[in-house]
Amino acid sequence: MERLTVTLGERSYPITIAAGLFSDPASFGPLKDGDQTMLVTNETLAPLYLDKVRSVLEQAGVKVDSVILPDGEQFKSLAVLDTVFTALLEKPHGRDTTLIALGGGVVGDLTGFAAASYQRGVRFIQVPTTLLSQVDSSVGGKTAVNHPLGKNMIGAFYQPASVVVDLDCLQTLPARELASGLAEVIKYGIILDGDFFSWLEEHLDALLALDGKALAWCIRRCCELKAEVVAADERESGLRALLNLGHTFGHAIEAEMGYGNWLHGEAVAAGMVMAARTTQRLGNLSESEVQRIITLLQRAGLPVTGPKEMSADAYMPHMMRDKKVLAGELRLVLPLAIGKSEMRGGVPHDVVLSAIADCQQA
Amino acid sequence: MERLTVTLGERSYPITIAAGLFSDPASFGPLKDGDQTMLVTNETLAPLYLDKVRSVLEQAGVKVDSVILPDGEQFKSLAVLDTVFTALLEKPHGRDTTLIALGGGVVGDLTGFAAASYQRGVRFIQVPTTLLSQVDSSVGGKTAVNHPLGKNMIGAFYQPASVVVDLDCLQTLPARELASGLAEVIKYGIILDGDFFSWLEEHLDALLALDGKALAWCIRRCCELKAEVVAADERESGLRALLNLGHTFGHAIEAEMGYGNWLHGEAVAAGMVMAARTTQRLGNLSESEVQRIITLLQRAGLPVTGPKEMSADAYMPHMMRDKKVLAGELRLVLPLAIGKSEMRGGVPHDVVLSAIADCQQA
Repeated sequence: MERLTVTLGERSYPITIAAGLFSDPASFGPLKDGDQTMLVTNETLAPLYLDKVRSVLEQAGVKVDSVILPDGEQFKSLAVLDTVFTALLEKPHGRDTTLIALGGGVVGDLTGFAAASYQRGVRFIQVPTTLLSQVDSSVGGKTAVNHPLGKNMIGAFYQPASVVVDLDCLQTLPARELASGLAEVIKYGIILDGDFFSWLEEHLDALLALDGKALAWCIRRCCELKAEVVAADERESGLRALLNLGHTFGHAIEAEMGYGNWLHGEAVAAGMVMAARTTQRLGNLSESEVQRIITLLQRAGLPVTGPKEMSADAYMPHMMRDKKVLAGELRLVLPLAIGKSEMRGGVPHDVVLSAIADCQQA
Repeated sequence: MERLTVTLGERSYPITIAAGLFSDPASFGPLKDGDQTMLVTNETLAPLYLDKVRSVLEQAGVKVDSVILPDGEQFKSLAVLDTVFTALLEKPHGRDTTLIALGGGVVGDLTGFAAASYQRGVRFIQVPTTLLSQVDSSVGGKTAVNHPLGKNMIGAFYQPASVVVDLDCLQTLPARELASGLAEVIKYGIILDGDFFSWLEEHLDALLALDGKALAWCIRRCCELKAEVVAADERESGLRALLNLGHTFGHAIEAEMGYGNWLHGEAVAAGMVMAARTTQRLGNLSESEVQRIITLLQRAGLPVTGPKEMSADAYMPHMMRDKKVLAGELRLVLPLAIGKSEMRGGVPHDVVLSAIADCQQA
């Protein structure tokens, strides 16, 4: 078992990472006999895990109601959020209730925002079931729903009371989703920790084989790295932007190809290679370092080139809508070495376009 | 001009109270040349004040977009909130935008929650136009929308960057709305400040005549009193409950009679007399003190008895749904003297019922 604390003053919380946590009521941290909870999950996960979690909590005397959402990013909406409020009010649940988010990023983000805003804030426990949500959304306190005019446009910064990562969930995760999570894992190595990148080169096969010890340490290290960044910059003014490596390019791919056709991690993987090629063209990264990045991503089953139907010119309009754009100037997170990165403005557009072209499929 | 600061650490903010503020760009505090704003108001207030505020801001180089909401408590909903997000995204407005709430409690609560959740939080300026919102919602950071199953069930604690109280708005406020605001004003005297209650006895006619100096001082004192309570108890665990004097009874009247038939302040006025009669029956308040309360409320044009069609028994089911109910026990804010109050549990229901009956119309 791995256990760490995200340090945020009085809003600090523990993350517990192990197999078999759903069989142990002690996993669900601050919950105790007599507590009322609303478990939010989706229709794909409910048949797999809902009864199991419900029964272990009920054995501990915790009351468990549930809401089952439709599965998919298109349901991360205000309308679906409202169904959670309705479920809470119909029972009714008071200010002392606890929301439990059992699912990936969509369930976690939506449930977190429901917890942030129900009666102006109730307790909330994250139970991320995908590798991506385990290494990404379980730290940082970002909650949100989408608006038809923009992703994650409505939300709150709101911290969970605890995060429970049961590694057994990864056994039922589709291989493409696992790879998508690994893209974010590899990202932490590139931007912040060269030793972790080397560890990944050594242990990637173990991770792909779902080796429990390797997974637990890997998830712990990603959470630690993200927690350090978030603790230093909770509201995203500077340092936290580094976590966006590959995302400016990746969001362009997602938007151009239609959300869901390229998984987020797949788009970020290709985007990280584009960022690396940009730095290389600026003289800050060697070909051998770029090749280490490409090789590791490929071993994880991730794309390292953009969609062949998308020209370099098609990226720029999307990239100029990025949240990091300031006064009309594109700003990019660039890897300066494996384990070191910075945000840089004023990169000439022709360099960026050439770097994208470097990553076009033949 | 009166000016005070609500002290909440890095979220402290100023309240400015004077006539003629809408003619002076300096009133709108942190806004400066080049800032982008979204002014939210309603269809009743827009013809009265929108052009005036827009033009003074535009003279100062501030860009002003606007959303005009329908007028009424029934529009304090998630659906109407979404129209504010749509307006923001259509322009689009970035994280550096400022929302301006020009209106009473409905506009202020909804706009505050829009500011709290748009892109996870943007700046927000309150411009309360009713006496009630000037003395109540301009301090405390409570923002919310209603759900069909409960009022103010979806929201956030979120502080404005500044509050601008232009006394000229009260010139167009209907007399019943002014009286409703005075109920909350008188409440501050009863629960916290006997000297202020005496001042009100002396200056009530000046307030009813909309004397600027009296109004400014009165609003300032209410904001000060509320700010002291909120600073001590931002998230409403104890002391802040005192602000609910009369509200447990009052909410029962509002719910039973249908929201909007009795104005909030009218129901609170009758409720404060019921709370006073309860304390009197428990031996903590003299008949002469109760009479001082009744006389002042009557002078303000407020009811001091419940609706004649509502029996004492009709109150209790509503009162037991109050947020202060703990483990099934009714808890009431009771005035112990003029200027002193406490929250008390375990008051026998028959005493409460008798106190309500004391306040029945003959």
